[in-house]
Amino acid sequence: MANQLPAFITPNDLREHWQGHRRLTRRTIEAFPTDKLFAFSVGGMRPFGELAREMIGMAVPTIEGLISDTWSAYAEAPATTRESLLQAWDDTTAAIDERWASIPVAHFQDTVTAFGQWTMPAHALVLYLVDNEVHHRGQGYVYLRALGIEPPPFYART
Amino acid sequence: MANQLPAFITPNDLREHWQGHRRLTRRTIEAFPTDKLFAFSVGGMRPFGELAREMIGMAVPTIEGLISDTWSAYAEAPATTRESLLQAWDDTTAAIDERWASIPVAHFQDTVTAFGQWTMPAHALVLYLVDNEVHHRGQGYVYLRALGIEPPPFYART
Repeated sequence: MANQLPAFITPNDLREHWQGHRRLTRRTIEAFPTDKLFAFSVGGMRPFGELAREMIGMAVPTIEGLISDTWSAYAEAPATTRESLLQAWDDTTAAIDERWASIPVAHFQDTVTAFGQWTMPAHALVLYLVDNEVHHRGQGYVYLRALGIEPPPFYART
Repeated sequence: MANQLPAFITPNDLREHWQGHRRLTRRTIEAFPTDKLFAFSVGGMRPFGELAREMIGMAVPTIEGLISDTWSAYAEAPATTRESLLQAWDDTTAAIDERWASIPVAHFQDTVTAFGQWTMPAHALVLYLVDNEVHHRGQGYVYLRALGIEPPPFYART
Protein backbone atom coordinates (compact mmCIF):
# COMPACT_ATOMS: atom_id res chain seq x y z
CA MET A 1 0.00 0.00 0.00
CA ALA A 2 3.01 2.32 0.19
CA ASN A 3 2.97 5.16 -2.29
CA GLN A 4 5.95 7.06 -3.60
CA LEU A 5 5.45 10.25 -1.63
CA PRO A 6 7.35 11.14 1.53
CA ALA A 7 5.10 10.80 4.57
CA PHE A 8 4.81 13.46 7.24
CA ILE A 9 2.23 11.20 8.88
CA THR A 10 0.52 8.00 7.78
CA PRO A 11 -3.27 7.78 7.34
CA ASN A 12 -3.56 5.49 10.36
CA ASP A 13 -1.54 7.79 12.63
CA LEU A 14 -3.66 10.73 11.46
CA ARG A 15 -6.83 8.81 12.38
CA GLU A 16 -5.37 8.13 15.82
CA HIS A 17 -4.35 11.81 16.17
CA TRP A 18 -7.92 12.84 15.35
CA GLN A 19 -9.41 10.32 17.76
CA GLY A 20 -7.13 11.72 20.48
CA HIS A 21 -8.63 15.15 19.83
CA ARG A 22 -12.09 13.60 19.82
CA ARG A 23 -11.47 12.06 23.25
CA LEU A 24 -10.56 15.51 24.55
CA THR A 25 -13.63 17.07 22.93
CA ARG A 26 -15.79 14.38 24.55
CA ARG A 27 -14.37 15.35 27.95
CA THR A 28 -15.10 18.99 27.12
CA ILE A 29 -18.76 18.11 26.44
CA GLU A 30 -18.87 16.30 29.78
CA ALA A 31 -17.40 19.32 31.58
CA PHE A 32 -20.45 21.47 30.77
CA PRO A 33 -23.33 21.53 33.25
CA THR A 34 -26.35 19.96 31.52
CA ASP A 35 -28.32 23.21 31.66
CA LYS A 36 -25.48 25.17 30.00
CA LEU A 37 -24.39 22.85 27.19
CA PHE A 38 -27.04 24.01 24.72
CA ALA A 39 -27.77 27.37 26.34
CA PHE A 40 -24.61 29.23 27.37
CA SER A 41 -22.18 31.12 25.15
CA VAL A 42 -20.09 34.30 25.04
CA GLY A 43 -20.35 37.17 22.56
CA GLY A 44 -23.51 35.91 20.82
CA MET A 45 -21.77 32.77 19.53
CA ARG A 46 -23.30 29.29 19.34
CA PRO A 47 -23.42 27.20 22.55
CA PHE A 48 -20.92 24.34 22.76
CA GLY A 49 -23.59 21.66 22.29
CA GLU A 50 -24.43 23.15 18.89
CA LEU A 51 -20.76 23.29 17.94
CA ALA A 52 -20.40 19.60 18.88
CA ARG A 53 -23.47 18.75 16.78
CA GLU A 54 -21.73 20.42 13.83
CA MET A 55 -18.57 18.34 14.41
CA ILE A 56 -20.62 15.12 14.44
CA GLY A 57 -22.58 16.21 11.37
CA MET A 58 -19.40 16.70 9.33
CA ALA A 59 -17.31 13.68 10.31
CA VAL A 60 -18.84 10.50 8.92
CA PRO A 61 -20.46 12.11 5.82
CA THR A 62 -16.99 13.40 4.87
CA ILE A 63 -15.43 9.96 5.26
CA GLU A 64 -18.30 8.39 3.29
CA GLY A 65 -17.78 10.99 0.59
CA LEU A 66 -14.08 10.18 0.39
CA ILE A 67 -14.86 6.48 0.09
CA SER A 68 -17.71 6.66 -2.43
CA ASP A 69 -17.50 10.17 -3.96
CA THR A 70 -21.19 10.44 -3.02
CA TRP A 71 -21.82 13.48 -0.84
CA SER A 72 -24.90 13.52 1.33
CA ALA A 73 -26.50 16.79 2.34
CA TYR A 74 -24.88 18.18 5.45
CA ALA A 75 -27.10 17.67 8.49
CA GLU A 76 -26.31 18.66 12.06
CA ALA A 77 -26.64 15.78 14.54
CA PRO A 78 -30.11 16.03 16.12
CA ALA A 79 -28.98 15.55 19.76
CA THR A 80 -30.51 18.00 22.24
CA THR A 81 -29.36 16.51 25.56
CA ARG A 82 -25.87 15.82 26.87
CA GLU A 83 -26.63 12.11 26.99
CA SER A 84 -27.84 11.86 23.40
CA LEU A 85 -24.95 14.07 22.25
CA LEU A 86 -22.41 11.77 23.92
CA GLN A 87 -24.13 8.75 22.37
CA ALA A 88 -23.94 10.34 18.91
CA TRP A 89 -20.30 11.20 19.65
CA ASP A 90 -19.47 7.58 20.50
CA ASP A 91 -21.32 6.28 17.44
CA THR A 92 -19.18 8.62 15.32
CA THR A 93 -16.00 7.41 17.04
CA ALA A 94 -16.83 3.82 16.10
CA ALA A 95 -17.84 4.74 12.55
CA ILE A 96 -14.58 6.63 11.94
CA ASP A 97 -12.54 3.63 13.10
CA GLU A 98 -14.61 1.21 11.01
CA ARG A 99 -14.59 3.15 7.76
CA TRP A 100 -11.28 5.03 7.73
CA ALA A 101 -9.24 2.23 6.14
CA SER A 102 -11.70 2.10 3.22
CA ILE A 103 -10.35 5.43 1.96
CA PRO A 104 -7.70 4.42 -0.59
CA VAL A 105 -4.31 5.72 0.57
CA ALA A 106 -3.54 7.49 -2.70
CA HIS A 107 -6.88 9.31 -2.57
CA PHE A 108 -5.64 11.62 0.19
CA GLN A 109 -3.58 13.39 -2.48
CA ASP A 110 -6.52 13.82 -4.89
CA THR A 111 -8.46 17.05 -5.20
CA VAL A 112 -12.11 16.52 -4.30
CA THR A 113 -15.22 18.69 -4.26
CA ALA A 114 -16.89 17.91 -0.96
CA PHE A 115 -20.64 18.30 -0.57
CA GLY A 116 -20.79 19.86 -4.02
CA GLN A 117 -18.99 23.02 -2.99
CA TRP A 118 -15.60 22.74 -1.23
CA THR A 119 -12.74 21.92 -3.60
CA MET A 120 -9.42 20.98 -2.03
CA PRO A 121 -7.03 18.05 -1.61
CA ALA A 122 -8.58 15.22 0.41
CA HIS A 123 -5.90 15.60 3.09
CA ALA A 124 -6.87 19.26 3.53
CA LEU A 125 -10.53 18.28 3.80
CA VAL A 126 -9.81 15.82 6.62
CA LEU A 127 -7.56 18.33 8.38
CA TYR A 128 -10.39 20.85 8.09
CA LEU A 129 -12.55 18.53 10.22
CA VAL A 130 -9.82 18.23 12.85
CA ASP A 131 -9.01 21.95 12.79
CA ASN A 132 -12.67 22.96 12.97
CA GLU A 133 -13.07 20.76 16.03
CA VAL A 134 -9.95 22.19 17.73
CA HIS A 135 -11.07 25.74 16.87
CA HIS A 136 -14.54 25.31 18.33
CA ARG A 137 -13.32 23.33 21.33
CA GLY A 138 -11.00 26.25 22.13
CA GLN A 139 -14.13 28.42 22.16
CA GLY A 140 -15.76 25.90 24.51
CA TYR A 141 -12.79 26.34 26.85
CA VAL A 142 -13.57 30.07 27.08
CA TYR A 143 -17.24 29.32 27.82
CA LEU A 144 -16.16 26.94 30.61
CA ARG A 145 -13.75 29.51 32.09
CA ALA A 146 -16.48 32.15 31.93
CA LEU A 147 -18.66 29.70 33.90
CA GLY A 148 -15.89 29.29 36.47
CA ILE A 149 -15.16 25.70 35.35
CA GLU A 150 -11.64 24.36 34.72
CA PRO A 151 -11.47 22.80 31.21
CA PRO A 152 -9.75 19.41 30.72
CA PRO A 153 -5.97 19.70 30.06
CA PHE A 154 -5.31 20.42 26.38
CA TYR A 155 -2.51 17.86 26.12
CA ALA A 156 -4.58 14.94 27.52
CA ARG A 157 -5.64 12.82 24.56
CA THR A 158 -5.85 9.28 25.94
CA MET B 1 13.71 11.02 -0.43
CA ALA B 2 10.55 8.88 -0.55
CA ASN B 3 10.20 6.52 2.36
CA GLN B 4 8.21 3.30 2.42
CA LEU B 5 5.29 4.53 4.50
CA PRO B 6 1.91 5.54 3.05
CA ALA B 7 1.50 9.31 3.16
CA PHE B 8 -1.59 11.02 4.47
CA ILE B 9 0.19 14.30 3.77
CA THR B 10 3.73 15.13 2.71
CA PRO B 11 6.05 17.25 4.87
CA ASN B 12 5.90 20.11 2.39
CA ASP B 13 2.10 20.12 2.23
CA LEU B 14 1.97 20.08 6.02
CA ARG B 15 4.27 23.11 6.13
CA GLU B 16 1.96 24.88 3.69
CA HIS B 17 -1.10 23.84 5.75
CA TRP B 18 0.53 25.32 8.85
CA GLN B 19 1.50 28.52 7.07
CA GLY B 20 -2.14 28.84 5.94
CA HIS B 21 -3.18 28.72 9.58
CA ARG B 22 -0.45 31.20 10.43
CA ARG B 23 -1.76 33.64 7.82
CA LEU B 24 -5.17 33.43 9.48
CA THR B 25 -3.67 33.89 12.96
CA ARG B 26 -1.81 36.96 11.68
CA ARG B 27 -5.13 38.43 10.50
CA THR B 28 -6.59 37.63 13.92
CA ILE B 29 -3.77 39.61 15.60
CA GLU B 30 -4.50 42.50 13.24
CA ALA B 31 -8.22 42.38 14.10
CA PHE B 32 -7.57 43.33 17.74
CA PRO B 33 -7.58 47.01 18.67
CA THR B 34 -4.05 47.91 19.79
CA ASP B 35 -5.21 48.69 23.32
CA LYS B 36 -6.94 45.29 23.68
CA LEU B 37 -4.38 42.89 22.19
CA PHE B 38 -2.34 42.52 25.38
CA ALA B 39 -5.04 43.63 27.82
CA PHE B 40 -8.43 42.05 27.06
CA SER B 41 -9.57 38.51 27.76
CA VAL B 42 -12.59 36.53 28.97
CA GLY B 43 -12.85 34.33 32.07
CA GLY B 44 -9.45 35.25 33.48
CA MET B 45 -7.57 33.74 30.52
CA ARG B 46 -4.47 35.17 28.86
CA PRO B 47 -4.93 38.03 26.36
CA PHE B 48 -4.50 37.12 22.68
CA GLY B 49 -1.17 38.93 22.39
CA GLU B 50 0.27 36.65 25.07
CA LEU B 51 -1.12 33.58 23.32
CA ALA B 52 0.50 34.72 20.07
CA ARG B 53 3.82 35.24 21.86
CA GLU B 54 3.58 31.63 23.04
CA MET B 55 2.98 30.42 19.46
CA ILE B 56 6.04 32.31 18.24
CA GLY B 57 8.11 31.07 21.16
CA MET B 58 7.38 27.43 20.32
CA ALA B 59 7.66 27.38 16.52
CA VAL B 60 11.28 27.88 15.47
CA PRO B 61 12.88 26.30 18.59
CA THR B 62 10.85 23.14 17.84
CA ILE B 63 12.03 23.05 14.23
CA GLU B 64 15.61 23.69 15.35
CA GLY B 65 15.28 20.84 17.84
CA LEU B 66 14.03 18.50 15.15
CA ILE B 67 16.96 19.44 12.92
CA SER B 68 19.75 19.32 15.51
CA ASP B 69 18.28 17.41 18.49
CA THR B 70 19.43 20.40 20.55
CA TRP B 71 16.57 21.89 22.53
CA SER B 72 16.85 25.48 23.67
CA ALA B 73 14.98 26.67 26.73
CA TYR B 74 11.47 27.76 25.84
CA ALA B 75 11.15 31.53 25.78
CA GLU B 76 8.05 33.52 24.94
CA ALA B 77 8.59 36.10 22.21
CA PRO B 78 9.30 39.47 23.89
CA ALA B 79 6.91 41.55 21.73
CA THR B 80 4.69 43.96 23.67
CA THR B 81 3.13 45.97 20.84
CA ARG B 82 1.04 44.86 17.88
CA GLU B 83 3.71 46.09 15.51
CA SER B 84 6.56 44.20 17.16
CA LEU B 85 4.36 41.12 17.49
CA LEU B 86 3.57 41.16 13.77
CA GLN B 87 7.27 41.63 12.99
CA ALA B 88 8.16 38.63 15.15
CA TRP B 89 5.34 36.71 13.45
CA ASP B 90 6.73 37.46 10.00
CA ASP B 91 10.27 36.58 11.06
CA THR B 92 8.94 33.21 12.24
CA THR B 93 7.10 32.70 8.94
CA ALA B 94 10.34 33.16 7.02
CA ALA B 95 12.34 30.98 9.43
CA ILE B 96 9.84 28.11 9.14
CA ASP B 97 10.03 28.21 5.34
CA GLU B 98 13.83 28.40 5.39
CA ARG B 99 14.48 25.60 7.85
CA TRP B 100 11.63 23.12 7.35
CA ALA B 101 13.29 21.13 4.58
CA SER B 102 16.33 20.54 6.83
CA ILE B 103 14.27 18.14 8.94
CA PRO B 104 15.05 14.71 7.44
CA VAL B 105 11.83 13.20 6.08
CA ALA B 106 12.20 9.93 7.99
CA HIS B 107 12.67 11.84 11.25
CA PHE B 108 8.96 12.73 11.39
CA GLN B 109 8.33 9.08 12.37
CA ASP B 110 10.96 9.07 15.16
CA THR B 111 10.08 9.51 18.81
CA VAL B 112 11.72 12.60 20.24
CA THR B 113 11.89 14.22 23.66
CA ALA B 114 11.32 17.90 23.02
CA PHE B 115 12.75 20.52 25.36
CA GLY B 116 13.83 17.73 27.70
CA GLN B 117 10.30 16.82 28.70
CA TRP B 118 7.75 16.01 25.97
CA THR B 119 8.20 12.56 24.43
CA MET B 120 6.20 11.80 21.31
CA PRO B 121 6.62 11.10 17.58
CA ALA B 122 8.03 14.11 15.74
CA HIS B 123 4.88 14.36 13.60
CA ALA B 124 2.78 14.64 16.77
CA LEU B 125 5.10 17.36 18.09
CA VAL B 126 4.67 19.44 14.93
CA LEU B 127 0.91 18.89 14.95
CA TYR B 128 0.91 20.03 18.58
CA LEU B 129 2.23 23.41 17.42
CA VAL B 130 -0.48 23.69 14.79
CA ASP B 131 -3.24 22.48 17.12
CA ASN B 132 -2.11 24.76 19.95
CA GLU B 133 -2.29 27.70 17.56
CA VAL B 134 -5.77 26.74 16.28
CA HIS B 135 -6.96 26.18 19.87
CA HIS B 136 -5.78 29.56 21.11
CA ARG B 137 -6.89 31.38 17.97
CA GLY B 138 -10.39 29.98 18.57
CA GLN B 139 -10.20 31.62 21.99
CA GLY B 140 -9.12 34.86 20.32
CA TYR B 141 -12.27 34.65 18.18
CA VAL B 142 -14.39 34.66 21.36
CA TYR B 143 -12.48 37.67 22.68
CA LEU B 144 -13.13 39.50 19.40
CA ARG B 145 -16.84 38.63 19.47
CA ALA B 146 -17.05 39.77 23.09
CA LEU B 147 -15.54 43.08 21.89
CA GLY B 148 -18.17 43.31 19.14
CA ILE B 149 -15.61 42.65 16.39
CA GLU B 150 -16.17 40.17 13.55
CA PRO B 151 -13.22 37.72 13.38
CA PRO B 152 -11.65 36.84 9.99
CA PRO B 153 -13.37 33.90 8.21
CA PHE B 154 -12.03 30.59 9.55
CA TYR B 155 -11.67 29.06 6.09
CA ALA B 156 -9.57 31.94 4.65
CA ARG B 157 -5.96 30.78 4.61
CA THR B 158 -4.43 32.59 1.64
